[in-house]
Amino acid sequence: MNTKGRVTIPTDESFVEGTKEIAAKWGADAVRDCDGTVLPSNVSELAEKVYNTYFVVRGDNEWGEKHPEETHRTFLMSERVIAEGKTLEIEVMKGYFAQQLAPDWGNLSYWEVIDRTTGSVVNGWKADRESGKVVIENAELMHEYTVNFMALVIWHPVQIYNYLTNNWTCAKQKMYDPAFPNTAKYIKEYMAKWCDDHPETNVVRFTTFLYQFTLIFNEKGKEKYVDWFGYGLCVSPALLEAFRKEYGYAMRAEDFIDGGCYANPFRVPGKKILDYMDFVARFVSETVRGLVDIVHEKGKEAMMFLGDDWIGAEPYGKYFEKMNLDAVVGSVGGGVTVRMLSEIPYVKYHEGRFLPYFFPDTFFDGNEENAVAELNRNWTTARRAMMRKPLDRMGFGGYLALAAKFPKFVDRVSEICNEFRAIVDAFGNARPYSGITVALLNCWGKQRSWMSHMVAHELWYQQIYSYQGILEALSGLAVNVKFISFDDVKKGIDEDIDVIINVGDAMTAYSGGEKWNDAEIVSAIRKWVREGHGFIGVGEPTAYVKDGRTFVLADVLGVDKEIGFTLSTDKYNIEKKDHFITEDVNGAIDYGEDMKNIYALDGTDVLDIRFSDRFKRNVNVGEVKMAANRCGKGRGVYIAGLPYSPENARILYRALYWSAGKEAEMKKAFSSNPLTECSYYPEKGKYAVVNNSAQPQKTVFYDIEGNAKELSLSAAEIRWL
Amino acid sequence: MNTKGRVTIPTDESFVEGTKEIAAKWGADAVRDCDGTVLPSNVSELAEKVYNTYFVVRGDNEWGEKHPEETHRTFLMSERVIAEGKTLEIEVMKGYFAQQLAPDWGNLSYWEVIDRTTGSVVNGWKADRESGKVVIENAELMHEYTVNFMALVIWHPVQIYNYLTNNWTCAKQKMYDPAFPNTAKYIKEYMAKWCDDHPETNVVRFTTFLYQFTLIFNEKGKEKYVDWFGYGLCVSPALLEAFRKEYGYAMRAEDFIDGGCYANPFRVPGKKILDYMDFVARFVSETVRGLVDIVHEKGKEAMMFLGDDWIGAEPYGKYFEKMNLDAVVGSVGGGVTVRMLSEIPYVKYHEGRFLPYFFPDTFFDGNEENAVAELNRNWTTARRAMMRKPLDRMGFGGYLALAAKFPKFVDRVSEICNEFRAIVDAFGNARPYSGITVALLNCWGKQRSWMSHMVAHELWYQQIYSYQGILEALSGLAVNVKFISFDDVKKGIDEDIDVIINVGDAMTAYSGGEKWNDAEIVSAIRKWVREGHGFIGVGEPTAYVKDGRTFVLADVLGVDKEIGFTLSTDKYNIEKKDHFITEDVNGAIDYGEDMKNIYALDGTDVLDIRFSDRFKRNVNVGEVKMAANRCGKGRGVYIAGLPYSPENARILYRALYWSAGKEAEMKKAFSSNPLTECSYYPEKGKYAVVNNSAQPQKTVFYDIEGNAKELSLSAAEIRWL
Repeated sequence: MNTKGRVTIPTDESFVEGTKEIAAKWGADAVRDCDGTVLPSNVSELAEKVYNTYFVVRGDNEWGEKHPEETHRTFLMSERVIAEGKTLEIEVMKGYFAQQLAPDWGNLSYWEVIDRTTGSVVNGWKADRESGKVVIENAELMHEYTVNFMALVIWHPVQIYNYLTNNWTCAKQKMYDPAFPNTAKYIKEYMAKWCDDHPETNVVRFTTFLYQFTLIFNEKGKEKYVDWFGYGLCVSPALLEAFRKEYGYAMRAEDFIDGGCYANPFRVPGKKILDYMDFVARFVSETVRGLVDIVHEKGKEAMMFLGDDWIGAEPYGKYFEKMNLDAVVGSVGGGVTVRMLSEIPYVKYHEGRFLPYFFPDTFFDGNEENAVAELNRNWTTARRAMMRKPLDRMGFGGYLALAAKFPKFVDRVSEICNEFRAIVDAFGNARPYSGITVALLNCWGKQRSWMSHMVAHELWYQQIYSYQGILEALSGLAVNVKFISFDDVKKGIDEDIDVIINVGDAMTAYSGGEKWNDAEIVSAIRKWVREGHGFIGVGEPTAYVKDGRTFVLADVLGVDKEIGFTLSTDKYNIEKKDHFITEDVNGAIDYGEDMKNIYALDGTDVLDIRFSDRFKRNVNVGEVKMAANRCGKGRGVYIAGLPYSPENARILYRALYWSAGKEAEMKKAFSSNPLTECSYYPEKGKYAVVNNSAQPQKTVFYDIEGNAKELSLSAAEIRWL
Repeated sequence: MNTKGRVTIPTDESFVEGTKEIAAKWGADAVRDCDGTVLPSNVSELAEKVYNTYFVVRGDNEWGEKHPEETHRTFLMSERVIAEGKTLEIEVMKGYFAQQLAPDWGNLSYWEVIDRTTGSVVNGWKADRESGKVVIENAELMHEYTVNFMALVIWHPVQIYNYLTNNWTCAKQKMYDPAFPNTAKYIKEYMAKWCDDHPETNVVRFTTFLYQFTLIFNEKGKEKYVDWFGYGLCVSPALLEAFRKEYGYAMRAEDFIDGGCYANPFRVPGKKILDYMDFVARFVSETVRGLVDIVHEKGKEAMMFLGDDWIGAEPYGKYFEKMNLDAVVGSVGGGVTVRMLSEIPYVKYHEGRFLPYFFPDTFFDGNEENAVAELNRNWTTARRAMMRKPLDRMGFGGYLALAAKFPKFVDRVSEICNEFRAIVDAFGNARPYSGITVALLNCWGKQRSWMSHMVAHELWYQQIYSYQGILEALSGLAVNVKFISFDDVKKGIDEDIDVIINVGDAMTAYSGGEKWNDAEIVSAIRKWVREGHGFIGVGEPTAYVKDGRTFVLADVLGVDKEIGFTLSTDKYNIEKKDHFITEDVNGAIDYGEDMKNIYALDGTDVLDIRFSDRFKRNVNVGEVKMAANRCGKGRGVYIAGLPYSPENARILYRALYWSAGKEAEMKKAFSSNPLTECSYYPEKGKYAVVNNSAQPQKTVFYDIEGNAKELSLSAAEIRWL
């Protein structure tokens, strides 16, 4: 058993001996600093590699204060105000955090006033810096107005969070945007100097590059708006002007503000915002490449932290390769985040930061059991994905001294580190067997692989978990997973794809919204399914209300959603049928937030339906929750929602095989018990049967030929066969 | 106590003596026939008045067979078919009942083929009568096509229902449309002759006039489509041509077919369909007036049955007065149907047919208790509405001999008849006290008073009861109720209105859909509320997705609906507050089908909020179910849904008083216990405190001055004070 390597631990100057002990126990070969800690002077003795955090556009307040005009900008929408008279005054900063943001009175040409009742741009207003107000003359009585204003970002948003949450008292970090000429020059010089000043550092851990994801605070210093994908903080006049010159048209404030939706990734993106994102991505990749070249020249590695100022450096984007990074690191919340990290192309290694953080909120006296439980939960969900595509390294964050006080925790991490190394050693980059290739179809496609239905990074939202469950399930299923966009459909669906999944709420970029009003896309998918492929819809797939249908591909899915327009039509297809897809179901299926008012078309097999208990008479009511439909040589499946659970992952697995018409092939490299999963590595001739549960499990294992064998697995065991 | 009059009973020739006995017990002064029964020859001896059913456009098969070209027509959409090749054949009648409907091959000029994938009309098709198919050449591969075809109605839909349900064997009734010249003449002659042939008849019970509501059967003879409001069966070429001549433009098949939604009342109506409805209503009222004049000349009364062929004779429509009817009769399912009937203008009396019908499905051996229970339930819900605006007469239907076998039932009806007469005698048409005037706002307004959210008449649908509950509650609350349209808002909101209610699902005619994209309407309501009025929204009120808002009047309601576009915005207003509106609430409120993803804006009072039990961490989640918001001098209230129950009626009552800013006046002519209600009749100086429950209740009664007095009421008692 390999007991050394592939593990990074945090350290600081007050815990040198303890670090050595734990490094030995866990087999750690790298140490890192943490926000607010200082590396020991003899850090190189602690491990083979030393990571050091590096900030590109913050951290040097001297520079920030010298060039306030080169700070980042954002476009903000004022509160909505109803005109109760001819003159209307709007205090633009109301509801915003004055320590973070300041109106950019010097760039009024970018500002707009919008009549939200008519949707029109208003002329005839003036900005009054004294009072902080915009005054609109000749307002329409009872119309709603907002001001779209440009604001200077005067305090880095991530630092605000740490500062206010952890009562920091250090200087408030200014920002500086390398789109401006002085900062462009400065960041290169500083990079070189920093490398020289940090000979102990092997890995420059960029945290991160040029533009922070959108994170705006309210007047109380609490989070007001957060979009992990948001390009809202890369709109400095320097960028906007460069864009206008290159593209020949100008972006408007409203292009970013978008009625207060701020063009977040749930919005179906239009051409302008896509142009701008591409523009920013090119600028970021070129600028970062300049820095990475310096890092390499200085004999160090460049590692990207996937978070914070990562905007424009999307790892599945077109220009990621150009940055020539050595590694990425990110936090691991479950299987989805493992795959999001481990599949990033063009880097040498991928590292995951596991939970829990060694912070006092978890590591306080008497909480050891909970800490171990969180560790196990995190590891078990992540491990499913590792079996498909492992990370290269794992690590932890926080104060190691806190973890050291919990011996059971330390021991369990030690076991996990060994298990992790065993997994990587067992098959490394050998491709595991997949019986099915599935493509997730949404507006973002490959560019946002493993990233759909996210708001703030990894946080739980009531509106997303029922859809994100699909990704979480896929992260550990024995299938190939691709991500395709509607443009990809137009170009021709890849030959290897067996099944397309479309999942999300109506009109979002995830289900597709107006893309479903495009006859070319609709026809292409219909043809492809009828030729013998599968299409699985979850939630409100293919939704675009038109001509008596809510789901444009109702003919494929076999169901539609009643939104009140076809109540007059009787719905007789309400008899639940046994089906291949639901064979392992035991009890009520958990659809999460569920979807109301789904009904089956004639000829569709209803796999699950629920009846209102309000009305006992024999009427044609009942809401279909799952359905299967044959469509030409192909098949469609509908599911109301599918939060992650082992049982739901099995439903999805069966739905994939059924819709692809490959039911007969499912029991190859397969483990019958839904709480277990089997991975097969043909190149290595190995099988792994994993018990995802915390209890012992019995299962029937099927090899690639379909030969069955009973297995008993201990709690959380991986059995290599 | 008045023990005679105001009651109609069914009779037939086989139950003459029994009829006399029961007539005496119930104080019946009128007898009627029933479908499938024959009045006794000495019927005039049985009661003061004799009703006789009369059909205008069916019943004379000799005429119908002589003039098949003058039958009614409908426009039907074929099934949706995907083109899998260049040539596409669609069998138009697939899924339709060939005994009811036949393609009108002689009127192909009205037919259309539609490409539903692009929404465009297709040229280049031919109809093949032999095969029953339409053949489309040059179809676009994988596009979805339908044929909009005209069909002859060859069997009256209501008779089909009775025929198939009750295994009738009589002749299948043809129909004939008086828009054609021969039938126009015929129906007048027949009317006169019929009156002469029926000297015993005092009241001609029209069942009903010229056009049946839309009722289409499928290939198995089961209901396929039902819309109690549908104008789908008034589209004969004679009508269409007359319309074209008058209006200068032609209606298309698709105007009626509407993508398979058939322009049902949940659809926001456009100008063309409204024009056509007005045209039909004028034609119907003029034609019916001709018949009513004959009835009057013959010394009889004309009574309209509100149902069956009632299309174009809408009792709250513009032309109803013109028909000069004497009476209306309709079935009573609860309070809403009582008010729908009892408020019909321009007739001398209003009669309600109560439940249960004397049919074998209820009146079988051993089912007496259930029959009495159904009677009591029907009476109690109807009685609430009677206390506000009573019917003039009540009656029953079916076979009296069956009811006569249940002595407890007969006795209970006797008590109810006396109670009914006592109510009418107590205040008759004296207007009861109302502390509030409330207006329901939707696309139909006054024309469809008490008729919103209905599909098949009085049937329960999962998608409507949570909204219809508002009407059911209002039918018995001590408030004035008006119905207004968006045009009425534009003309100026009536001075007497205190509160507007907008209730329904997004984009339906009941919430208003695109009407909320009209700045004039939006501004008018904003202004009106801010001046000191109330606005109550239920479900998805004022919904029209635009500029970051789902509810256009979110500023008034104080809430909006999260549809995925503003997940990035934090929602902190999640603390539930005690409030005047929820003071009588005890336990969890029943919101019926509920509404997901509602959040409160800052400053709104959250009255009820529910948190997901899936996530225990302290995050900003929670779905607001009820909220109250101050807006200028006025107030807004949001409720997620409100099926009828006494408790919910009380919530609505309180919401009305609060939103009108009249909380201080609520405890006048008021009964504190939500299971009881108080009506006050100032002209008569009388109060009625009604126990709506089947158990004794204690309550505090407040007179109009606010003086309180404790009362104990026996089960279902009315206490007159």
